[in-house]
Order: sequence, then structure tokens, then C-alpha cells
Amino acid sequence: MQDFALKGNIIYSKSLGQYEIVSNGYVVVSSNKVKGVYHELNLPIKIIDYGNALIIPSFVDLHVHAPQYANMGLGLDKELMPWLKTYTFPEEAKFKDLDYAKKVYKAFIKALWKCGTTRACVFGTIHKDATVLLMDLLTQSGLGAYVGKVNMNRNSPDYLIESTENSIQYTKEIIEKYDNQYELVKPIITPRFIPTCSFDLLERLGKLAKKYHVPVQSHLSENYGEINIVKTLHPNFKNYASIYDKAGLFGEEKTIMAHCVLVTDEEIDLMDKKKVFVAHSPSSNCNLASGIAPIRKFLSRGIPVGLGSDVSGGHRLSMTDVMVNAAQVSNLKWLETNHNLKPLNTAELFYLATKGGGSFFGKVGSFEEGYEFDALVIDDYSLHHLKPLSLEERLQKFIYTGDDRNIIARYVAGKKLEEPK
Amino acid sequence: MQDFALKGNIIYSKSLGQYEIVSNGYVVVSSNKVKGVYHELNLPIKIIDYGNALIIPSFVDLHVHAPQYANMGLGLDKELMPWLKTYTFPEEAKFKDLDYAKKVYKAFIKALWKCGTTRACVFGTIHKDATVLLMDLLTQSGLGAYVGKVNMNRNSPDYLIESTENSIQYTKEIIEKYDNQYELVKPIITPRFIPTCSFDLLERLGKLAKKYHVPVQSHLSENYGEINIVKTLHPNFKNYASIYDKAGLFGEEKTIMAHCVLVTDEEIDLMDKKKVFVAHSPSSNCNLASGIAPIRKFLSRGIPVGLGSDVSGGHRLSMTDVMVNAAQVSNLKWLETNHNLKPLNTAELFYLATKGGGSFFGKVGSFEEGYEFDALVIDDYSLHHLKPLSLEERLQKFIYTGDDRNIIARYVAGKKLEEPK
Repeated sequence: MQDFALKGNIIYSKSLGQYEIVSNGYVVVSSNKVKGVYHELNLPIKIIDYGNALIIPSFVDLHVHAPQYANMGLGLDKELMPWLKTYTFPEEAKFKDLDYAKKVYKAFIKALWKCGTTRACVFGTIHKDATVLLMDLLTQSGLGAYVGKVNMNRNSPDYLIESTENSIQYTKEIIEKYDNQYELVKPIITPRFIPTCSFDLLERLGKLAKKYHVPVQSHLSENYGEINIVKTLHPNFKNYASIYDKAGLFGEEKTIMAHCVLVTDEEIDLMDKKKVFVAHSPSSNCNLASGIAPIRKFLSRGIPVGLGSDVSGGHRLSMTDVMVNAAQVSNLKWLETNHNLKPLNTAELFYLATKGGGSFFGKVGSFEEGYEFDALVIDDYSLHHLKPLSLEERLQKFIYTGDDRNIIARYVAGKKLEEPK
Repeated sequence: MQDFALKGNIIYSKSLGQYEIVSNGYVVVSSNKVKGVYHELNLPIKIIDYGNALIIPSFVDLHVHAPQYANMGLGLDKELMPWLKTYTFPEEAKFKDLDYAKKVYKAFIKALWKCGTTRACVFGTIHKDATVLLMDLLTQSGLGAYVGKVNMNRNSPDYLIESTENSIQYTKEIIEKYDNQYELVKPIITPRFIPTCSFDLLERLGKLAKKYHVPVQSHLSENYGEINIVKTLHPNFKNYASIYDKAGLFGEEKTIMAHCVLVTDEEIDLMDKKKVFVAHSPSSNCNLASGIAPIRKFLSRGIPVGLGSDVSGGHRLSMTDVMVNAAQVSNLKWLETNHNLKPLNTAELFYLATKGGGSFFGKVGSFEEGYEFDALVIDDYSLHHLKPLSLEERLQKFIYTGDDRNIIARYVAGKKLEEPK
């Protein structure tokens, strides 16, 4: 691929809460990676001029359930555990049917592309074939992803449960076949959560993770009902996180834990020590009456944080919607903690939605030198600029009031992506 | 106007939490009003067939600030009082310039139309001419509204304050000229809130309301900082609401109080006694770190409630976004009150966004006989129906995942509205 540059108003983030802004600048791409961002350019390379548009790193969704896509926006009237039983498990069971899987996964990928999410950490179902299909379809689309075959061998309905042996065997087969198969789509070990995974299964998944150096994703301390079940199942463990930890699934390989709404200080210490990523999913946490995660506390400890749509606990795939929801609940958290945990501002949320989550993928989510070139081009003309706005304000207005109609181009690892078929 | 009928899948609400659903039915309109909803129709009238679309009452926004539209999505990083001083008052001051007012108000009206809000209770600014212009432009668009010239004669910046005499005089002039000028757009008495209105001004506004039988709108107990100021200004009143009440502005004529986040039990008793409408504005209450209003408590007392976007404290005009936000914070309120105040479900929020707010306008917001025919036609084909959905589920999916692109027709008082120029 020849070097090239995009021209426009460039905004990205190197560190939490700090914008880097180059108005009418150039971001130069060489071998899929960012070479640099410049005010002036005198290189004999192709320049794609996006005029007055904004050019930003594209969004990273650290937590999303692809097979729940058909349920998006439905059945958000229960807490986590009854919600799983009533709406989610019956839907996921359908993914033994590959035709249904293909229909839903194609629609999911199209929707992801549309809203400008170009990297995602995705839960599949327990079904090996459907999970592999999802990896193939994501690769065809050009999007980047970690995709997990879900493991669940207890406390699950008859129609959505697997034996420990099958669970391990299929997980292993996927890892062996797919760990080096694709450039941008990789397997990730995905025990659903403690209630549906025996400790034996968890330990064996921990060993797989270690043997193949494969990352891990799961859920942690999302909801009161869930935590009570975990306590009953494992009375001898001091907390939820320590169960994953004992099984070798808590930061031995790079790890994402979704939610972390109700974690104790001891669990936070462990998250910090093991540098476990938090996938903050505020829309879902509101929709399922889970509560508000103490994100400011995680950030001040240096725990890595990204954002997750958690569809279909979350009701929209768009990361800008998640950013707004995250700002809102951080304000409520500030009230709830007597002004102790400071609200998250737009610049901080922009960092979390780009480099924060992107760092789970490596050098992703920024325009610093050597980062994979993932970008969105935002034409915000339709957003009624009734008075002069700074570039920061234009970005904020897009986040709060814009939508997919404003995204006119998407790049992943240096390549422009057309709409998936 | 000749009688006519719309054909489609009809959903509306007569009472809180109850859907009325007629699939493939007819809503018949006679002299701007609903005559009835039928499964079969054998009348020789014009039928507009919307096929598989949903037909619902259009949305009512009980609380929105038109002059803040250019700020929508900007500056949501402060609490109410500093937010007013930093962002809002300087913006409102610009409305002494009628050219600027025209530009912003036209864009505001277009945006309102777009998202399917066909009736709104609108705050203007202190400027008489701009407020009158807003009423004229709304009338040209065909939308229905109460529009208030804002009153503020103290604790306001030099560039946005008026004398008591001018405040009363201009309010009176607008009422005398506009109370019977237009069918669907009417004046409403609009003291900004207690901090910016002397008691003398409030009392004189109360007298105007009584003399002309004009309704009233204001803000009540939105935010901690605001309430502290009110306490300091009026140490002899037992609470915020009682100040409005003493001035004759609390339900003597029909009255809306926006927010009511932090009202005391005594204030709730008074709201109940005077049947004061609450404009619940959850997005704004999150954005400005105000908190969560106890809506379930109001509803169980029979206090009338509608929803408000409160742009630009709120960041979107769309009432479906407000409904989702209202559901979310009601879940958090349920947690906060140890499961005492039950969450609001989608059917309840649909009622609040249609008939709940609509009842402030009279017979508006339902398809019951005699109601003014305000309707939206929703084509939800694009929302990925990957599996069969009931009509209730289709409505829920539109509310949670749809947007203005799904609204293909808007009717107000029997008339189809084209996009405002």
C-alpha cells in the first residue's frame, strides 16, 4: 500500500482528558500505520482532502454481545438474572441454526460499521460453528475484533448448556485454528460469568489462556442479584474477582471485565495489580437497574478503562450514545458520593472511547506515530452551527447531537471500509 | 375539511401503562378531531393507507427553551447555576437581535418537526419582539405551542435583565394581542424561576394570570445550588413551591413546573392539591447533575406528569430519547430507594410522552373520540426486524433504537404538516 494522507480538522487524544487538535492538518499513513500529524505537508503522496470535516480515531467497543442484536431495544424491563432467562438465553439458543446466525451477524456487523465502531470485543454464543462464522464475517467486513465462543456449563437452561469437555474442546479448536488465521480478528477466551461456569471449567480455561497466550473477557460484579448467586455458589472466596483470579483468568493474559459496578475495594486492588481492563457499559447498567460503576476511582488508580455498548443490555451500538450516558451517570455518581468522585468530561470520554479501549488491541485509538490508522471522517454540517464553534465544540456537538449520518468515511488499519454486504 | 381516515397499525394510550392496539385498523378524523378507531371501515371517505406502518399520537414536549437551541449538546459540564451564567444567559442575550432570533428559531422549529414533537411548552427570552416572532413562526409551521416571554428582574446579568414595569408591561401586551390570535399557539406566563424574579414581580404575574386566565410555567426545585439560593432569598417561606403559591402562580391557572427533582413531601402535597403538572426532564437532570425526580411518587399521588426535553440542559429534542432516559433513571431511582419507587416501563413512558403531556393542551395526545388528531406515522422497516415482533415490541424498538428517519408523516389537529421552511 502506498503512503497517503488525509486532510481535515484532526482531533485525537494521547492521554486522559487531553485533546490534540490540528486544524486543517494532515495525518500521514504509511504501511497501515500513522506516520505523523502535520500542519503542513510537502511530500509527493496522495492526499485525500476532507475539507472542513473532522477526522478522529474511530471508536472501540470493549463489550458487546453480537447474538443479542435482534433483541436490541426490547425487553429492558427486568434486572440482569430474570432478563437473561426471559429474553437473552432463548435468543442465544437460536444460534445453533447457522442460517439464523448468518442473518443476525450480518445485520450486526453492518450496524457496527454504520455507527463508526471499527474494533470490538465480542461475545458469541456457546456454539462453535456460529462463532467461527462471526469471525469469518467480521474479517470479510474489514472490522477488527476479538471474538469469544461463550462457555457455560451450569445453571443454564437445557437448551443452552454444554458439557465441560465440549466447552474446553471447542474453545481449544477455535484457538488453534483462528489464533493466526486473520490479521484483525482473533479469538478470546470467554467464560460467560461465574454463575454459569463451574470452577473446574474456569481453571481449565485459565490453562488454555496461559498455554496459547490468548486474552480473556468476562463479566464482573454487574448486578446485586448476580453477586448474591456468586456468594452462594462460592462461600469460601472472599469476593467475585478472586474466583477468576484463582482460576488464572484475571490478568495473567490481558483481560477485560465488563461492568464492575459493585466491586469492593479489595477487588479494585486486584484489578489494579493485574491491570485488568474495565469495559464500562453505562447504558446497560441503567437499563438493567445494575447501578453506576465508580469509573473515576478506577481511573485515579490507573486501572485501564474502555467503553462498551453491551448490546442488548445496552440499547444502542453507537459509542457516542454510550459516551453521553457515561457522562450522565458520572454526574449522578458525583451526587451519590457527596462530590467525591468527579464527573467525567467530554474529553475524558473521547479518550476512553478511542485510545482507552483501543489499547486493549495494541497501538489502536490514537494518531500517535506507529498507531494503526483507524479513523472516522465526520461531516457535521447538518448539526446546525448557528454560531461559530471551536473544533472541540464541534466534536462535542457531534457526540451529543449527531449520529451515523455524520460519518462519511471509516478506516481500519489504513484501509477504507465500504459498507458490509 | 372533509372527513378522512388513516389506515395502519394503531397504538395509543388511554391510561397510564395501558396500550390500545388495533392492528390494520382505521383512525377516522372529522373536523380536526378523532371520531374513532375501528377494525373495519365502511364509510365513503378518503382513506390514506400507510400499510404496515405504526400510527401513534405525536409527542408533546412539556418543557423546552427555544433560544438555547444553538447551545444544544454544548457546555454540559457544569451544575445549573454556573451553567446558566457561563453558557445560557450570554446566548439568550443575543435574542434582542431579531435576525439572530429568526435564524435560531427557524432551525429550532424545523428540528422539533423532524423529531415528531407537535406540541410544546416553550420558554423564550425576556425579549418581547423575539418571543412574538417565535409565536408567529410556530404558527406558520403548523405546530402547537404555549410560548412564554421569560420574566427576570433580579440576580441576572446586566445584559439580560428587565425592570419590573417592563416585565409586566410586555407580558401583558403579548397576552392581550396573542391570547386569541392563533388557534394552536398561545401565550403562557413564564417567570424564569424564583432566583431571578422578585416577589413583587411574581405577585403581579399571578394577577395577570388570574385576570386573563392564562396558564403558567416555571422551574421548581431542580438543583441543590438553586434551592440554596432560594432559601437565602426567602428565609420566611417554608419551601420553594410555597413562594409561587403565595404569588398566585401555583395552579390557580393551569401550571407546569419543570423538574421537581428535590421537592419535599410538603411541596408534593401542594402539587397534588393544586394539580400542578410536572415536566419531567431526565436528560437535563443528568446532564446538569441535578439528580432524579421521584416520578413514581408523583404518579401514585395522581399528580399530572409529562416529559420535557429541556433543551439545552437536555441535549436532544427527540422525545423518544427522553423516554429512554426516563426509564433509565427510574431504574436507578428504584435502586436508590431500596426498591420502593418502582421503575417506569415503556407503556407508562409512552403515555407520559403523549396523553400525559398532551392533557395540558386539552384533549391532545390520544386517539379517543373528540381528541384533536395529532399523529405520527412510523415506518420501522429499517430497524432490523430479524424475528417476528408484536406491535408493542415494534413500538418499543422504535423508541429505543429508532430516530427521525422512521417518522414518515406528522399530523397536528387533523392537518398533515410539511417540513417547515
